[in-house]
Amino acid sequence: MLSRRVLQQRISAVRRGLSRVDAAAVVFGLSTNMRYLTGFIDEPGERMLVLVVPRDGDPTLIVPELYANQVRAREPDCTLRVWADGDDPTLIVRDVARELETQTGRVLLDDTLWTAIALPVQQAFAGREAGLASEVMTELRMRKTLEEVECMQRAGEITDRALEDALSLPIVGQTEIELARRLESAMLDGGANGIAFETLVAAGPNSALPHYRAGNRRIEPGEVVIMDFGCRIEGYCSDITRTVVCGEVAPDIDNAYAAVRKAHATARDRAKRGVPAQEVDRAARNVLAEAGYGEAFCHRTGHGVGLDVHEPPYIVEGNSTRLEPGMAFSIEPGAYFPGSFGVRLEDVVIVTEGGAKPMTEAPRELRAVE
Amino acid sequence: MLSRRVLQQRISAVRRGLSRVDAAAVVFGLSTNMRYLTGFIDEPGERMLVLVVPRDGDPTLIVPELYANQVRAREPDCTLRVWADGDDPTLIVRDVARELETQTGRVLLDDTLWTAIALPVQQAFAGREAGLASEVMTELRMRKTLEEVECMQRAGEITDRALEDALSLPIVGQTEIELARRLESAMLDGGANGIAFETLVAAGPNSALPHYRAGNRRIEPGEVVIMDFGCRIEGYCSDITRTVVCGEVAPDIDNAYAAVRKAHATARDRAKRGVPAQEVDRAARNVLAEAGYGEAFCHRTGHGVGLDVHEPPYIVEGNSTRLEPGMAFSIEPGAYFPGSFGVRLEDVVIVTEGGAKPMTEAPRELRAVE
Repeated sequence: MLSRRVLQQRISAVRRGLSRVDAAAVVFGLSTNMRYLTGFIDEPGERMLVLVVPRDGDPTLIVPELYANQVRAREPDCTLRVWADGDDPTLIVRDVARELETQTGRVLLDDTLWTAIALPVQQAFAGREAGLASEVMTELRMRKTLEEVECMQRAGEITDRALEDALSLPIVGQTEIELARRLESAMLDGGANGIAFETLVAAGPNSALPHYRAGNRRIEPGEVVIMDFGCRIEGYCSDITRTVVCGEVAPDIDNAYAAVRKAHATARDRAKRGVPAQEVDRAARNVLAEAGYGEAFCHRTGHGVGLDVHEPPYIVEGNSTRLEPGMAFSIEPGAYFPGSFGVRLEDVVIVTEGGAKPMTEAPRELRAVE
Repeated sequence: MLSRRVLQQRISAVRRGLSRVDAAAVVFGLSTNMRYLTGFIDEPGERMLVLVVPRDGDPTLIVPELYANQVRAREPDCTLRVWADGDDPTLIVRDVARELETQTGRVLLDDTLWTAIALPVQQAFAGREAGLASEVMTELRMRKTLEEVECMQRAGEITDRALEDALSLPIVGQTEIELARRLESAMLDGGANGIAFETLVAAGPNSALPHYRAGNRRIEPGEVVIMDFGCRIEGYCSDITRTVVCGEVAPDIDNAYAAVRKAHATARDRAKRGVPAQEVDRAARNVLAEAGYGEAFCHRTGHGVGLDVHEPPYIVEGNSTRLEPGMAFSIEPGAYFPGSFGVRLEDVVIVTEGGAKPMTEAPRELRAVE
């Protein structure tokens, strides 16, 4: 439970950000930004539920009546404007926009705000240029506090244990979905508040598809299996990928994995304070290119992790953001051979004064399992 | 698996819709609309993955490289424009927009498209007014085909059985989350492809919060418990709510539930071909108002259900859409008494020539359970 003081500090920081980027206000929907600033959590929906934070003046929460009692119970530090099903909430948005008429500057919109909500908001703030809330939120959320890191570490420990649990029984003969459910149950039984994203289990040729999820394919002897999964503690995500082989490891798989593992270790060594994010990507990419797997590595090296499973800093060519202590991101090189197999190794690391510290510690060798 | 022919027909229908509403193109993100039109499924993310359907000319799918092989394997009927991590995909969006320069009219955006994707798309289509994809999609998706209804019925049957499974053991002493997990496991074991939304289990005073989810409260004797849950078959959702009481039923609970049940039955009787959606809402609302529970019913009577768990038609005051065979929506009156308890009864119904037919048949009386 976030204290009132922390939430007030965060809102103040958003206001300072609005001054810095010359914006009059920022509008948040049901998102991780909303959770970060108010503690309020729900899935996004078609009903208008937005928090308007102006550069000057009090925040306003526009909220459907059926949420109103839940919100009031939290005694939020903002003006509530409640509307009922059948009312037109855009009238309230226009009122709020009118109250800010004297403040100059753009209006920022939550990055994940649905267009069905964003369009009427843009119309209410007619004449103002639109920008993204990340212009002020990225800086705030990218550097994790000790409390945030602790949640991520607990999530990481649960994730490590879930892997051991899932591999304690033979996986040959299970379907991908069955193994995915086993991993998810183990995380929930282990104390997770939820899973972080749809669990990926890709067996055999499916492992060559980096964004495959899990299907009805039954795992067969000799096959590569990639498992990519994570859970949440207080909203903060873990994210791990491990690759296993059912039975004997063929040389082509072994060679590709060895290069991926070296790329992972090299990138982690490079992930130090002051280093631009793209240098970590280059470190991994160079290792794989030198080993002849340049073409086989078809995605960025990683992404930031926090309340979102994908958030800044992205570990990608073109991102010159310098790493700082408290930044958390995945390092996940892979190599994919369409029609045949793929391998990937992923841990989330946190940048510390002493280098990048992984949040997950499950063995990183290519495991042969039953 | 959707046949190529069905997908082609749907794209043609979108094109006719664009002509009708005077739009040059519509841009879809990773959404249920994308699934409906291409069969392609994934969670929305920060990477630019959009389908541009012009009024004239071939559709274009702008797709990140790591999805490219999955997409190619489906042999989609559209031009693929692939970009790699580190590239700037907005350059491709601008190219596509330029190719459509000679076509007049607005650009429509997927209703759930993230603003971080929608803003650069709007900039690429500079000078065009923006609208929502629902202007063309609602008409298409609102009337379900036999195949779609069959998926929803299978989902409904699994949901009914999951309730019986969960109530076959005493629920007193379980936490809300434990009961929610039990319902979800029963649906997955019963053959569901996934759950439709985060399961709601609200016990005691939590039942008075219509949008509560599930927490660590342990269910106690005498308490009301609301369970609101559903699953998916081929993407199509079920959605049911049942209210139970642990042990003896207090008169105030019994009276409120009796009114809600009567409102539910009355609304269902009213849900016939040709009747405006708002009349179904009024039918439920009048029953509750006459019984003295007008204030306690603080939300609309229902929402459409299909690939989205909330979609048109909304059963709400102000919606004059006339019901037609094939429309599927929830009927879910409730009564909520803050600090004390709440009750709700929900089934999804499908409009047929013979009236509204429920997709779920679990007993509708107020059940006393252990």
